[in-house]
Amino acid sequence: MNRDAQRRAAAEAAAKLVENGMVVGLGTGSTAAHFIDALIRRVRDEGLKITAIPTSLRSDRQAREGGIKMASFANVRQLDLTVDGADQIMRGSLDLVKGLGGALLREKIVAAASKRLVIIADSSKLVDHLGGKIPVPVEVVKFGWESTATRIEKLGATPVRRWPKDTDQPFQTDGGNYILDCTFGALDDPAGLERALSHTIGVVESGLFIGMADTAFVANATGVEKLTRL
Amino acid sequence: MNRDAQRRAAAEAAAKLVENGMVVGLGTGSTAAHFIDALIRRVRDEGLKITAIPTSLRSDRQAREGGIKMASFANVRQLDLTVDGADQIMRGSLDLVKGLGGALLREKIVAAASKRLVIIADSSKLVDHLGGKIPVPVEVVKFGWESTATRIEKLGATPVRRWPKDTDQPFQTDGGNYILDCTFGALDDPAGLERALSHTIGVVESGLFIGMADTAFVANATGVEKLTRL
Repeated sequence: MNRDAQRRAAAEAAAKLVENGMVVGLGTGSTAAHFIDALIRRVRDEGLKITAIPTSLRSDRQAREGGIKMASFANVRQLDLTVDGADQIMRGSLDLVKGLGGALLREKIVAAASKRLVIIADSSKLVDHLGGKIPVPVEVVKFGWESTATRIEKLGATPVRRWPKDTDQPFQTDGGNYILDCTFGALDDPAGLERALSHTIGVVESGLFIGMADTAFVANATGVEKLTRL
Repeated sequence: MNRDAQRRAAAEAAAKLVENGMVVGLGTGSTAAHFIDALIRRVRDEGLKITAIPTSLRSDRQAREGGIKMASFANVRQLDLTVDGADQIMRGSLDLVKGLGGALLREKIVAAASKRLVIIADSSKLVDHLGGKIPVPVEVVKFGWESTATRIEKLGATPVRRWPKDTDQPFQTDGGNYILDCTFGALDDPAGLERALSHTIGVVESGLFIGMADTAFVANATGVEKLTRL
């Protein structure tokens, strides 16, 4: 299986967890898009009855067009299950780095409102230590973002404001904030860093998801492995 | 002195702290407006040379119209002094509840980037315990605010989304977020609550300012008292 086929296989394994009557959180990104595709097929072919809450306009559109009934927090307080991708998954703890796709805030809010967060990925995302070469995305308010970056530097990072190539504007999240991609090197204490970031004035949310995922479906060339949080 | 005259007296005492060359943070609200007035007079009458960073469009306009030179975080990383009002000031610690005016996020960012935060108020704001009848304003992202409110409830509050009388829209901050006014009763551990709120997913910033103010000028009918953090 090539990498895209691996992601699809992981997504299909997660889609089997969905049961009639569930409220399902839909992640964002290429792997989550495979999950939404698999859900659409189950709704169409098996008559599966679910409602869903999306974490981005993109996932919202894909699900609606596929015939999934959408809900919102105006009428749902708790979701049964959210399925999403991740940029890094730590073996054992299933702690995550997320946010390279730019939707970390809504992803975290939907995950926090769910009984379960299940992660789907290809095996290149599985690591022994979070961080390293991959930055931790941190969503910050626009006002005074330069001073927020200075405070994050003091936590040991090199923050860079995300700015897509060949554009004349920095990246803006759905919530109208900036993303600082913060390279810390290998993280000795991801939970402590997550607390320190969330306590930093000007930070809306970090891409560190600590203690949130309970299961990960990770695919490699030969098949899908199910990992459970230790 | 009536209450407004008291606030003006406190503001004028704080304005005396400002020196040539300083970068000054301008708070928001009726008491902060008196401080900006006093600064404008010092700039006009004494030729005081300062630059300022505002915490709201309102304070920005007042200062500009009065001839104060404005700066921004694009060219200033640290402010010398921020002067702002507060809704409650705790005796001794000078910990604060702020945000009834709706500008808590920018106020906190400017205060955090300042060497000193000086508070000005009339004596009705001075309390032995924060909270009580006054809610703690908490700025939350719009997306999923209902689920964020549920998480704040679990910290012991009754959160109410701010909704100005006779309007058909909930209050929106300069950053496009909602304010939840969270009544906790008297706060036993303001610092612990502030940490818990900032760690709550969906919370942008709370109106608890812990360990930030070093001085308060508090006016009563007979004069202005200078309080220093213990």
